[in-house]
Amino acid sequence: MKEVVIGIDIGGTFTKFGIVDKEGNCLKENFTSTDKYTEFEVYLEHLHTEIEELISSINEEIEIKGIGIGAPNGNYYHGTIEHAPNLNWKGTIPFVNKFKEYFPGLPIRLTNDANAAAIGEMIYGGAKNMRDFIVITLGTGLGSGIVVNGNVVYGHDGFAGEMGHLNVKHRGRMCGCGKRGCLETYVSATGIKRTAFKLLAERVDKSELRGISYNDLTSKMISEAAKKGDKIALDAFEMTGRVLGVKLADAVAFSSPKSIFIFGGLAKAGELIFEPTRRYMEENLLPIFKGKVEILPSQLQDANAAVLGASALAWRELQKLNA
Amino acid sequence: MKEVVIGIDIGGTFTKFGIVDKEGNCLKENFTSTDKYTEFEVYLEHLHTEIEELISSINEEIEIKGIGIGAPNGNYYHGTIEHAPNLNWKGTIPFVNKFKEYFPGLPIRLTNDANAAAIGEMIYGGAKNMRDFIVITLGTGLGSGIVVNGNVVYGHDGFAGEMGHLNVKHRGRMCGCGKRGCLETYVSATGIKRTAFKLLAERVDKSELRGISYNDLTSKMISEAAKKGDKIALDAFEMTGRVLGVKLADAVAFSSPKSIFIFGGLAKAGELIFEPTRRYMEENLLPIFKGKVEILPSQLQDANAAVLGASALAWRELQKLNA
Repeated sequence: MKEVVIGIDIGGTFTKFGIVDKEGNCLKENFTSTDKYTEFEVYLEHLHTEIEELISSINEEIEIKGIGIGAPNGNYYHGTIEHAPNLNWKGTIPFVNKFKEYFPGLPIRLTNDANAAAIGEMIYGGAKNMRDFIVITLGTGLGSGIVVNGNVVYGHDGFAGEMGHLNVKHRGRMCGCGKRGCLETYVSATGIKRTAFKLLAERVDKSELRGISYNDLTSKMISEAAKKGDKIALDAFEMTGRVLGVKLADAVAFSSPKSIFIFGGLAKAGELIFEPTRRYMEENLLPIFKGKVEILPSQLQDANAAVLGASALAWRELQKLNA
Repeated sequence: MKEVVIGIDIGGTFTKFGIVDKEGNCLKENFTSTDKYTEFEVYLEHLHTEIEELISSINEEIEIKGIGIGAPNGNYYHGTIEHAPNLNWKGTIPFVNKFKEYFPGLPIRLTNDANAAAIGEMIYGGAKNMRDFIVITLGTGLGSGIVVNGNVVYGHDGFAGEMGHLNVKHRGRMCGCGKRGCLETYVSATGIKRTAFKLLAERVDKSELRGISYNDLTSKMISEAAKKGDKIALDAFEMTGRVLGVKLADAVAFSSPKSIFIFGGLAKAGELIFEPTRRYMEENLLPIFKGKVEILPSQLQDANAAVLGASALAWRELQKLNA
């Protein structure tokens, strides 16, 4: 009998879920709509049905040990999703308590997606046996999972690790959160696009980016242009690395991690983003920390990383229960 | 038989030590020179003699359960003092290992002074039963002790919690650490003095501070001038509170503490510093954190707070041993 857990990643559009063994092999996975369901109860019933179908489709004998969930604005302490701007369900959603009715007796844990990514890195990825590290997820926004002494930092209210909203600049770029100058308005797939547009406005260099609309431009296009030597694109990476590097130096002063892992689309630009980030971080570190902290690409497989992260949360909770 | 511990606070000039019971009563304390001793071994022998004398002078029956030490650049993991700029002893000093020769069998623990202050707040002060909080110490510089889930954050190398060297401004004020623009160059007794001098240079307002030299000016004088309505002094507090408030908002995004305690001389300015700090922190918080985090004065008695903090480290370690 193979021991497995169910990992669920709730996104604004889709919910992905998979059956994952201890080694991080995803035996099977599937997805369903999130945004089609205006009523949370209907969504949950449907999700349960889909998961049961996935379980039935597995040919070997399995024993389900637990469920881990990654969700936007997920609260680890309460098992709730609270005021998530990109979901249909408003207010505080008691996800875990409701879901338990479908899976009585099974340990179910929920956290936000970046914390799940951090636990994924710890259980299956590059942070095995590491006690102190940070995972930065670069997507539409910037998420972070901070691990101190072997545990994710949840903070007093369960919402710690919001590095996407560190303050970079007074009266800086408008952020979806209502503030201005947040880190993710500079450092994310969207952030580097905004930086590229700022540079296109300020400078006169020729650039292949001048033919692309804001709506059409992707961080991948900026990365491809940079690889061909496009000055605007290269400087967009330089500026993005500078803003990120300085804030990572702050993060090191705060929690002194051994490594910082970068996860998500923008990380695929490789040294274009890693080199300036490392350089500016080193420049802004206290002497006592210089040369000590690695910035590394995440070692979670991209294809199902979010589901792996969520499943890792379930394994991690089982470790704690047996400790 | 009364159970007590010995708390030792090592400063650049003096070393203070005291005998402290579980309730934080300092039965007796004394001090000796730090900077008179160029050789560490001679200092340690002398310190031991002084402590034994203090112990002998106590009239009731006591049982010494442990020793806690707060020291600049103190490393909790290794019990060392590493490259402390203000001490005579260069390089890495194996303080705890050497000290154990004088107190065989007794648990001895060492950390930096701000971490000791945080443990003091947790054991005797305003953070009793609090799992997530931060202590900011405002003296010549700015120190911080960050507590997550009931434990001080030491980080991968034992040096976490260096919020004094968070990056406030690119090419900002020169810092003793060799960097520029560090938080403590703006927010500390020295920082507010530098701000006052900047304002005296930039503006033409009359101010009683115009008659005082840089060497003579203290943060207490700025506070007294502000209380009399001196505009330069008032704005020096406003600016100090702004820089601190923004960085505390970052700290909240990072570890989501329940409370932030401010400790040290500058905290005595009361609302002059607390009001703008709170206001700017709130303004820069993610909506999810707004109105949740208190900024409070430390509740450790000032007279022997550093010794109390160090002794609290000893009690905390004994709690852990018995857990």
